[in-house]
Amino acid sequence: MRWRLPALALSVSLTDHERLSVSSTSVSRITGLDTYDIRFPTSRELDGSDAMNTDPDYSAAYLVLRTDSEDGLEGHGFAFTIGRGNDVQVAALDALRAHVVGRSVEDLCDDPGSLARDLTGDSQLRWLGPEKGVMHMAIGAVINAVWDLAAKRADKPLWKFLADADPEWLADQIDYRYITDALTRQEAVTILQRGREGRTARESDLLAHGYPAYTTSPGWLGYTDEKLTRLAQRAVADGFRQIKLKVGADLDDDIRRFRAARAAVGPDIRIAMDANQRWNVDEAITWTTALAEFDPYWIEEPTSPDDVLGHATIRKAVAPVQVATGEHVQNRIVFKQLLQAEAIDVLQLDAARVGGVNENLAILLLAAKFGIPVCPHAGGVGLCELVQHLSMFDYLAVSTTVQDRVIEYVDHLHQHFTDPVRIEGGRYLPPTAPGYSAQMHPGSITRYTYPHGQFWADDLAARTTDGQELAV
Amino acid sequence: MRWRLPALALSVSLTDHERLSVSSTSVSRITGLDTYDIRFPTSRELDGSDAMNTDPDYSAAYLVLRTDSEDGLEGHGFAFTIGRGNDVQVAALDALRAHVVGRSVEDLCDDPGSLARDLTGDSQLRWLGPEKGVMHMAIGAVINAVWDLAAKRADKPLWKFLADADPEWLADQIDYRYITDALTRQEAVTILQRGREGRTARESDLLAHGYPAYTTSPGWLGYTDEKLTRLAQRAVADGFRQIKLKVGADLDDDIRRFRAARAAVGPDIRIAMDANQRWNVDEAITWTTALAEFDPYWIEEPTSPDDVLGHATIRKAVAPVQVATGEHVQNRIVFKQLLQAEAIDVLQLDAARVGGVNENLAILLLAAKFGIPVCPHAGGVGLCELVQHLSMFDYLAVSTTVQDRVIEYVDHLHQHFTDPVRIEGGRYLPPTAPGYSAQMHPGSITRYTYPHGQFWADDLAARTTDGQELAV
Repeated sequence: MRWRLPALALSVSLTDHERLSVSSTSVSRITGLDTYDIRFPTSRELDGSDAMNTDPDYSAAYLVLRTDSEDGLEGHGFAFTIGRGNDVQVAALDALRAHVVGRSVEDLCDDPGSLARDLTGDSQLRWLGPEKGVMHMAIGAVINAVWDLAAKRADKPLWKFLADADPEWLADQIDYRYITDALTRQEAVTILQRGREGRTARESDLLAHGYPAYTTSPGWLGYTDEKLTRLAQRAVADGFRQIKLKVGADLDDDIRRFRAARAAVGPDIRIAMDANQRWNVDEAITWTTALAEFDPYWIEEPTSPDDVLGHATIRKAVAPVQVATGEHVQNRIVFKQLLQAEAIDVLQLDAARVGGVNENLAILLLAAKFGIPVCPHAGGVGLCELVQHLSMFDYLAVSTTVQDRVIEYVDHLHQHFTDPVRIEGGRYLPPTAPGYSAQMHPGSITRYTYPHGQFWADDLAARTTDGQELAV
Repeated sequence: MRWRLPALALSVSLTDHERLSVSSTSVSRITGLDTYDIRFPTSRELDGSDAMNTDPDYSAAYLVLRTDSEDGLEGHGFAFTIGRGNDVQVAALDALRAHVVGRSVEDLCDDPGSLARDLTGDSQLRWLGPEKGVMHMAIGAVINAVWDLAAKRADKPLWKFLADADPEWLADQIDYRYITDALTRQEAVTILQRGREGRTARESDLLAHGYPAYTTSPGWLGYTDEKLTRLAQRAVADGFRQIKLKVGADLDDDIRRFRAARAAVGPDIRIAMDANQRWNVDEAITWTTALAEFDPYWIEEPTSPDDVLGHATIRKAVAPVQVATGEHVQNRIVFKQLLQAEAIDVLQLDAARVGGVNENLAILLLAAKFGIPVCPHAGGVGLCELVQHLSMFDYLAVSTTVQDRVIEYVDHLHQHFTDPVRIEGGRYLPPTAPGYSAQMHPGSITRYTYPHGQFWADDLAARTTDGQELAV
């Protein structure tokens, strides 16, 4: 229970309590924040292609928090991007180095929320947001690396570290600024205390049966109908009860593809659809209505993630088709409004866009307060690895149910992680390794570092030989 | 009229029409995008201090578009930041270089909106926003530099370049994605056509009398009451009819300072107040109500710029005190909602946060459609220089009035610009030099480049001698 210090002690450096409780690492410090620009050439296969993201090279602005802890403790984190601009994201990580290096590992692990408030509240850095875009994603990556440290130090996977934590301590990790009109600290504590009832039984259920997933793998826009049909049928055979199609580039194509998908899976499998922000409000309504005959389960990202009122208008117009969004929602303040305005049926948090685990705690609690299910966005690089922890914690300690809750699953790039997701029968099995499952294999980091890692160096050489330039 | 090509011709490179009309620069290209990390040590004097921004070092992530035009044509632009993170902002500018270098100067100047759509719509870069934060500010800086090029090439200051432009062409510069539920292209054309009536008389008025300003110089939070009183009285003596106080750190202090300010200027001068996002919704209401006895003209940034619904709640509660926001509003989509939700009385656009002049065109037209006055945010580095052009264009061609409209004025750092603002009798005089007034003196750039310019090199040497580290 080393990590469950009372909040009052957190402002004091190295109390007797800390010295006694963390003997092996009692004076450890953060000694480095190393960054890596890692890019995978996913655009070559049109994996991940949709109506807005036509040629993504799934990438990670990756960092490692080094410590002088005797046991070699490290914290890993990353922001996910889709190629160009990953260098800018790395520059933002670099800008945070001076704020973190030299800090006490114990203080950070005892109170990650305090560092999160320091970083998002930095009087100069916040001009670059506030709490949005490149700088906020960088802060989220660093804060996630601290949570990885904290969970590893407690020798628990993050989902269990969170689920076992004291409600008062968890509630103290949240920054309530700008959300007190929707969620107070006391309401957070009440929800978390209520979440302790029956937790042991839910943990047994989770360990035995895992957490339900849905798969986006069949539905990328760049795939042929034949490939879509084949992958959709395989998804059902693999145990998935929900799949997702990308839509929004051409309505006739979408009608044809949706018909093929429905024919492939039958009436009982949920088919969600995802427009990736392609539409204006009126287009979203027209297009969704035109596809309603195929019984879509939700329409995801029908328009700009910034448009709270637009989503509310769309939701009213397209019911009973549900409205889902979240992967590009910048922070808890916009999620708060999506809930207040009754603009969404499904909240799709993302592990690597907002300001880290503590901001996602706030988002999970807001969703619970408003009674809206959380179905996280995943895929990309390592997003499945991260969000499974948040959903499992949500089940054990916040929403206390998996009813109508599913984690997105995409079967790309997991091999680069040291603790990859495990899917069985269409369900995520709970990770068992300590930490946040954010760590990549050193060989993957080395090979795919842009532009000097072996893959990209070879690629550039080949393209130069062909007389072409590298188009990044 | 070189710049007023019909929209249809814009997709064709170097038509006969272009060759004839732009003889001196007929084959010019963008040859470079040079970037500079420029920081001014404003935190030493607490200039610019407020409840959230306690120690700003006003900075610019600055760029120059070089061309091979025979007349040495250059486009200048910048993103404004307040110190730390200016390097990240420069990295974002650098990431745009490959998108701009090599393009035809003619094509860019004939249709800046097309480049804006290319950059904000880049399928990989948009993941870093979309249309918000560091990446969007970088795009805005580059696009503003293109507008600077276009106005210089037309030999007009930007305000006149815009005011003289054909309504159809101007309307084509706007990206209507995500705002068609509030403003269509046809509505934009109608507003702009209506704005042509009486324009000549308004231009004569503008040239004779300038555009009204208000000043924030007396009201920085770090100033003593004595300095506040002295500067407030001087502002009135200088002809200003409105001043602004920073509030939000301590209510008792604010009551004392507001009382002093009101005593200094009397009942007829408007005093706005600015909380710089310090409050939650309920705090904003309580605090504003507590200061209402001093007749504040508006409360600015009462809470998060992301909180459309929060602003609407505050506005209802604090009327007749007006609610103003905008300097941190990320894009046209959030402005659209602030207007739709009746959340603001005053719209404070910023020239260097959104995606450039064309996005501000959309914002000016949205404000006109909803009948809300635009009073731009300024100050910082060069923001006064930029926004004056937008307000003057608004007067001549969009809102057609200066009633209840004022441009913020702060008397800092203008000496670093080659075409600094001119204030007389509390009014901005229209700039006469061609372009967007964004250009800094080469000597200022050299001296304040961080960290190797002479100022910072000397500063670091002095601090090292004192045994201190440079705290940036």
